[in-house]
Amino acid sequence: MAEKKRGNQTVKFEKCPYVIGAAAVVGQKEGQGPLSSSFDVILEEDMFGEKTWEKAESKMLKEAMLTALRKSGKEKKDIDLVLSGDLLNQLMSSSFMARDLHLPFLGLYGACSTMTESLLLGAMLTDGGFAHNIIVGASSHYCTAERQFRMPVEHGNQRPPSAQWTATAAGAMIVSEKEADLSKVGAIDDRQNVFHPRNIRVDCGTIGKVIDAGVKDANQMGSAMAPAAVDTILNHLQDTGRTLDDYDLVLTGDLGYIGKDIAADLLIDAGLDRESVKRKYDDCGTMLYYREEQDVHGGGSGCGCSASVFSGNIISRMNRGELNKVFLVSTGAMLSTISPFQGESIPGIAHGVVLETC
Amino acid sequence: MAEKKRGNQTVKFEKCPYVIGAAAVVGQKEGQGPLSSSFDVILEEDMFGEKTWEKAESKMLKEAMLTALRKSGKEKKDIDLVLSGDLLNQLMSSSFMARDLHLPFLGLYGACSTMTESLLLGAMLTDGGFAHNIIVGASSHYCTAERQFRMPVEHGNQRPPSAQWTATAAGAMIVSEKEADLSKVGAIDDRQNVFHPRNIRVDCGTIGKVIDAGVKDANQMGSAMAPAAVDTILNHLQDTGRTLDDYDLVLTGDLGYIGKDIAADLLIDAGLDRESVKRKYDDCGTMLYYREEQDVHGGGSGCGCSASVFSGNIISRMNRGELNKVFLVSTGAMLSTISPFQGESIPGIAHGVVLETC
Repeated sequence: MAEKKRGNQTVKFEKCPYVIGAAAVVGQKEGQGPLSSSFDVILEEDMFGEKTWEKAESKMLKEAMLTALRKSGKEKKDIDLVLSGDLLNQLMSSSFMARDLHLPFLGLYGACSTMTESLLLGAMLTDGGFAHNIIVGASSHYCTAERQFRMPVEHGNQRPPSAQWTATAAGAMIVSEKEADLSKVGAIDDRQNVFHPRNIRVDCGTIGKVIDAGVKDANQMGSAMAPAAVDTILNHLQDTGRTLDDYDLVLTGDLGYIGKDIAADLLIDAGLDRESVKRKYDDCGTMLYYREEQDVHGGGSGCGCSASVFSGNIISRMNRGELNKVFLVSTGAMLSTISPFQGESIPGIAHGVVLETC
Repeated sequence: MAEKKRGNQTVKFEKCPYVIGAAAVVGQKEGQGPLSSSFDVILEEDMFGEKTWEKAESKMLKEAMLTALRKSGKEKKDIDLVLSGDLLNQLMSSSFMARDLHLPFLGLYGACSTMTESLLLGAMLTDGGFAHNIIVGASSHYCTAERQFRMPVEHGNQRPPSAQWTATAAGAMIVSEKEADLSKVGAIDDRQNVFHPRNIRVDCGTIGKVIDAGVKDANQMGSAMAPAAVDTILNHLQDTGRTLDDYDLVLTGDLGYIGKDIAADLLIDAGLDRESVKRKYDDCGTMLYYREEQDVHGGGSGCGCSASVFSGNIISRMNRGELNKVFLVSTGAMLSTISPFQGESIPGIAHGVVLETC
């Protein structure tokens, strides 16, 4: 077992658990964005045939998990554990998904950092020998988040330019002790080119600390989370002795346009090479939508933002060999709906996971 | 590494991680109950010197963790990870606690099952070699829960007899790869008797599935959670080949008076020996308060109920050798504040952990 050194935040994997399947289910708006071709399911309407948005979100999460499972070539009986979370109070999406899947379940809450929280825990539990196969995932839905965190959508309130757009999206991956049976993975890409799919394994992960930079404006989530993302990236590089150039891509979760710029500045201020930051660093919140045409203000956010970009776009690009080593850092704003009214600033957190092809 | 067999829900530990410290911080009412002498801190007033109940709850959780840490003989620099959760939306108590502790943190949500969820994950991550020492814990507060889940306390609404009383309490344990330095553990019990404190280790754990028995009344949490507790206990006994008589105590989290009776009946119906069930099985929700004098209706509940009973009462009794092998099963009702209005019944979950002296 790789020894986790005391004082650092990075865990290494002896057996390097594999990501043997992944899937993303997204809403209409996300399906009209630049990553459209990366997603497994694009909803025709965001109620997904359900009577409430919350039930739709829960169904999206379940659908993402079952699609990932199908793509992995595994069956429900092969799964030992489900790890997931969402933004809804009392994890409504995950709880009802877990009721339907009827598998051992541990609920997680890391706000929008939940995708890497679940992936990191899934990798640790698999590597530690406690499970053969684990489903990990996260979800969010624009309409459930708006009415819980801000205003009912029907209210039509005006959003400040810094506000981010909660993605209607769910992502899931299957973490396994054994590599994928690639004969079962589709080997024809979006442009109908034949390719030899690569295996993907989890190399290491970095567990984040809660960092509070004192931001109090709940419409400035990117600014509030950027210091946590930077803290996790810098700790990761220090713990591993790596540089940004060791990766094809370092991708934060949902800092959006403003937060991404702040994070890049902070990374450069911390001494990282400016060109490397420009070349290697990106943010899912800036990738999911067309900035101008889709009117998303500060960019994408929500657990489903990084969950769907990682599980849809990044895993496909790794399977095709376009990306070989990536550092995924989902970012979460751990404020509550009442903490700002109690004078509290916004605590941020970010967990990171390194995936590589093999 | 103990092999986790596919299809069962129980994980075994090769190195048997140790519980080297534990502490419970409780409110006034809990401090006047039958377990009063078990708790490390009893608040003089339930605001704990803070301006809001939420901040008081967060401070209680932090206090429980720091007290457990002090009792373990470890320092903050020895801790690799904090795992905790609470009932508040967006884990407000845990998030702000984690901001103040400034340690790597993973947030969990299992409703009132959170104490054993954190303990079980803490044991797996320690046993898996990913941490030397982990703080695990959970909290709840009567006033934060009432206003979030039911009515503002000031409203003075009438509670049905089946309603349970959310404990104002927090519990925490330190899970470690090495046994405790018992020279640092107080060796004088409540009655001033000298004793030789025992070490406590985590033997195994059982991860629960979400079980929904169709109960729709949010004032019947015990009934809603009992089938999940029974499912976890029966799966545990099947997975391990043990009987209730292999334990000194099998203790559910917060089923309360009604739920405990239902669980006992279901266990007997499932074929367990009636006398063993009577002798070995109990529930924290029936232990924390004096039933009549303290007017708690259905009994205690909340994450803090099992967290404080386990971390305060049970660990002390194990340290003193009064209990040697216990199966702790925190139980959670995974409904949300809006799911009943959407016609949903209450999903329950229960995770179990076996502690034994050594």
